[in-house]
Amino acid sequence: MKYNDYISVDCVIFGFDFENLNVLVVERTLRDENGVEEFSDLTLTGNHIYEDETINDAANRVLFDLTGLTGIYLEQFKTFAHPDRLKKENDRKWLLHDGRNPDKRIVSIGHFALLSKRDVTLQWKGRNVKWVPYHEIGELAFDHNEILEKAVVALREKVKHEPIGFELLPEKFTLTQLQRVYEIILGTEFDKRNFRKKVSRMKYLIPLDEKQTGVAHKPARLYMFSRDVYEKTKKELIDFWV
Amino acid sequence: MKYNDYISVDCVIFGFDFENLNVLVVERTLRDENGVEEFSDLTLTGNHIYEDETINDAANRVLFDLTGLTGIYLEQFKTFAHPDRLKKENDRKWLLHDGRNPDKRIVSIGHFALLSKRDVTLQWKGRNVKWVPYHEIGELAFDHNEILEKAVVALREKVKHEPIGFELLPEKFTLTQLQRVYEIILGTEFDKRNFRKKVSRMKYLIPLDEKQTGVAHKPARLYMFSRDVYEKTKKELIDFWV
Repeated sequence: MKYNDYISVDCVIFGFDFENLNVLVVERTLRDENGVEEFSDLTLTGNHIYEDETINDAANRVLFDLTGLTGIYLEQFKTFAHPDRLKKENDRKWLLHDGRNPDKRIVSIGHFALLSKRDVTLQWKGRNVKWVPYHEIGELAFDHNEILEKAVVALREKVKHEPIGFELLPEKFTLTQLQRVYEIILGTEFDKRNFRKKVSRMKYLIPLDEKQTGVAHKPARLYMFSRDVYEKTKKELIDFWV
Repeated sequence: MKYNDYISVDCVIFGFDFENLNVLVVERTLRDENGVEEFSDLTLTGNHIYEDETINDAANRVLFDLTGLTGIYLEQFKTFAHPDRLKKENDRKWLLHDGRNPDKRIVSIGHFALLSKRDVTLQWKGRNVKWVPYHEIGELAFDHNEILEKAVVALREKVKHEPIGFELLPEKFTLTQLQRVYEIILGTEFDKRNFRKKVSRMKYLIPLDEKQTGVAHKPARLYMFSRDVYEKTKKELIDFWV
């Protein structure tokens, strides 16, 4: 199969470890012909699309190649095509080394994905893949800092209107974990009592007859999110009228 | 300035005439060398981007060329690049006639725009431009029906969370007109008393000391929307918790 040389997808993959919102990044190391390192930095995950492939299929392929998983929450949020997006010196060197034309304008269709599984082997073309807390991410390759910033904005907006925060939690979670994921994404703190009062009204948040195991403190009750109940009970509302 | 031959923007321009949600379309007529019409159909408005132009500038340029106006509400909502999006027979003919390669995969970055002004001269490359009610739009060229459908979905979502419906109304409007624009976009009907009770709580909806003129019925009070007040009074809320 042949790659299209001007259409690519980039995926901002978010993960949550009960402490931080993390972003998956890949090491990019350029070596000269003697194997001496010229530079090493980080990129988001992405790929050019195949000539006969849709945008959505390409983004899902990137996620599958990376994780071996299908059905990961994925959303196309914005497209990037600034004339200067590939013009930093290291990016040009990288593209030339890769046999590509650094002056060719490449469109990147930005996606964000939410990965709840932590016990998964991540791999990307033999390169080192790692989670970095969002607030600790330094300068990324290409225009990937801009793509990341816009992905965070899109995630924040979406999380206010649809219960997608659950996609970052394990299947069974505590209310403290639930509160934490929303606090971290929205960059705010909720009062614990108010938060519990609110969630007690969510019919789609199902208390289980199970408790945490292997914790030092008093084990908390576990809950699950039911998309099924959510879809059936959600009210259509126009929230700016509230 | 040189056009990029694989990156384009398409704009779904919505307008409201107090009756219908209308969409701006452009006639596309192909004639053979003797001037005999081969076919005539309708397209959305769009254009390829210039090599040194950003996506946003290209979309605003399309709106300006069409209306002579700047500052029109514009939003990038989704990108389209299906391998078959330009493969209908008439589309291939049109592209060939235009000196373009119909097998070249073209990315279209979809935007929607909300146009409140009705007293504006619309023009597009000497072609006939017209408003068509959304529900009366038949088959459009290329993948423009899909772009239109996705734009309507994006408009409906956005209108629930941000007061952008005002962008389709004149500067001064009646409550009946306000109710109508929301009913039309959302495809629903509101109870008039409930609606008025809700809007009476919106601090950003300012009643004016002015009434309608030139109407046969009892003239209604006019209102204006204050974005300023909205920005200062809006509450951050997570609406799926409601």
